[in-house]
Amino acid sequence: MRFATVSLPDATTTAAVLDGSEWRALPAADLSELIRKVALAEAPELAGQALDEAKPTQLLHTPRKVICCGLNYSEHIRETGRDLPEYPTLFAKFADTLTGPDADISVPDGLQVDWEAELAVVVGTTLHRATRDEALAAIGGYTVANDISMRSWQYRSLEWLQGKAWDGTTPIGPVLVTPDEIDPAAGLDITCRVNGEVVQEDNTGTLVFDSADLLAYVSTFTRLMPGDVILTGTPGGVGVARTPQTFLADGDVVETAIAGIGRLRNVIRVHP
Amino acid sequence: MRFATVSLPDATTTAAVLDGSEWRALPAADLSELIRKVALAEAPELAGQALDEAKPTQLLHTPRKVICCGLNYSEHIRETGRDLPEYPTLFAKFADTLTGPDADISVPDGLQVDWEAELAVVVGTTLHRATRDEALAAIGGYTVANDISMRSWQYRSLEWLQGKAWDGTTPIGPVLVTPDEIDPAAGLDITCRVNGEVVQEDNTGTLVFDSADLLAYVSTFTRLMPGDVILTGTPGGVGVARTPQTFLADGDVVETAIAGIGRLRNVIRVHP
Repeated sequence: MRFATVSLPDATTTAAVLDGSEWRALPAADLSELIRKVALAEAPELAGQALDEAKPTQLLHTPRKVICCGLNYSEHIRETGRDLPEYPTLFAKFADTLTGPDADISVPDGLQVDWEAELAVVVGTTLHRATRDEALAAIGGYTVANDISMRSWQYRSLEWLQGKAWDGTTPIGPVLVTPDEIDPAAGLDITCRVNGEVVQEDNTGTLVFDSADLLAYVSTFTRLMPGDVILTGTPGGVGVARTPQTFLADGDVVETAIAGIGRLRNVIRVHP
Repeated sequence: MRFATVSLPDATTTAAVLDGSEWRALPAADLSELIRKVALAEAPELAGQALDEAKPTQLLHTPRKVICCGLNYSEHIRETGRDLPEYPTLFAKFADTLTGPDADISVPDGLQVDWEAELAVVVGTTLHRATRDEALAAIGGYTVANDISMRSWQYRSLEWLQGKAWDGTTPIGPVLVTPDEIDPAAGLDITCRVNGEVVQEDNTGTLVFDSADLLAYVSTFTRLMPGDVILTGTPGGVGVARTPQTFLADGDVVETAIAGIGRLRNVIRVHP
């Protein structure tokens, strides 16, 4: 099944489920609200009318927790000469950090804006001190994100938050795909293109900590609730690690895609 | 003025304002809800009946953002031989991380549980890309917190979140004191005692980045909303920096106090 938050011609939004090639309305203004009200497996029974001109917009608006994993692609870690990590590197973003699958990303000048294509996993049912099997069963679905990072702020201190939590800079979507349709642990191609050129290309099967590992680990210290989201880390090829370093400029087009899920397309807008 | 979330004999809670020695009810179940509905300056006009047996409990339940500053006391930084930082070190907690001013802090065995007495500043009005003066004017009030930290998890990776965001481990309260009554930038004594012994003792006047600095800085990258909270960092004397290292054990009593605000008293409970 495929779910989204869609915008309608009257400028409202609604949660929706894909039925063939048509989006059908679900009884919530967005997917965050829906997933807190009803189990996704039961949601299609509530589907209403087919929607004309429905267009996927920001997938999640009010997750209680947005947690991100750092270095997590084994090929990328090996190429940097490091050993595989024993524990995931985790940091947080805020609900306000998220934006839509085709939204412009507006940032002030001078931030060293970089790309980070990522698989995101959305929690379907509450998890607390879960085993890996329990975590696997609690996955609501998968989507695409880009952990756009402001390197000149990220490295001002050891802690990355201030480079990772700029409002409206992490696109997420366009759709949530349930685990009966895809299995990222078995391997899905993930790519990031900047102005059409491939800058990141890997496969989610090479993640050191897969979605179930991350949900179980995080649930050891904090309860995860329906609609919470974990970004699972980015492959090699980011701009800050290139020689010379490369950052995004005004007008650059960033496309982030995962096979079987979909594609984000975001334009960078730099303001004074 | 002094505000709190108080618990009542019927097991409900209400936001309340102190009137002489009596708590008077305000029209919200807790201070997070109140501060989103009404400006604190106008809240006393809404005060209802005096409350019998009202007792301050967890001050904030649903802040949208809980942001913490790392190393920020100049005496402590100098004693470690470092230069004063140019930028604050920032990381996040979750609303779920917070707990009450006299709540037990329940943690599994083996975490290297450490104390970090801190001044916390609560946002009163929305802030976005604010100047220092605007930030100062937006302060709702001050309270006491203890950024209880699980060192064995904090240092598993460079990013501290997994040692800082265990559910129900950061006590906050007992009251919110408005800026017309106290000025932490001018200097308030802050202490932490473990089983009666003073383990941290400093003055909020020695903060490198004061409350207004931190609110203005954070508002550069993310909008701050009424009820959001920033923990401003801890003085020297934490257990992990002692020789030998000292951590909290089952039954230990942690008391965290700031002159002019109040005192937290929390007992550590270790479970298997």
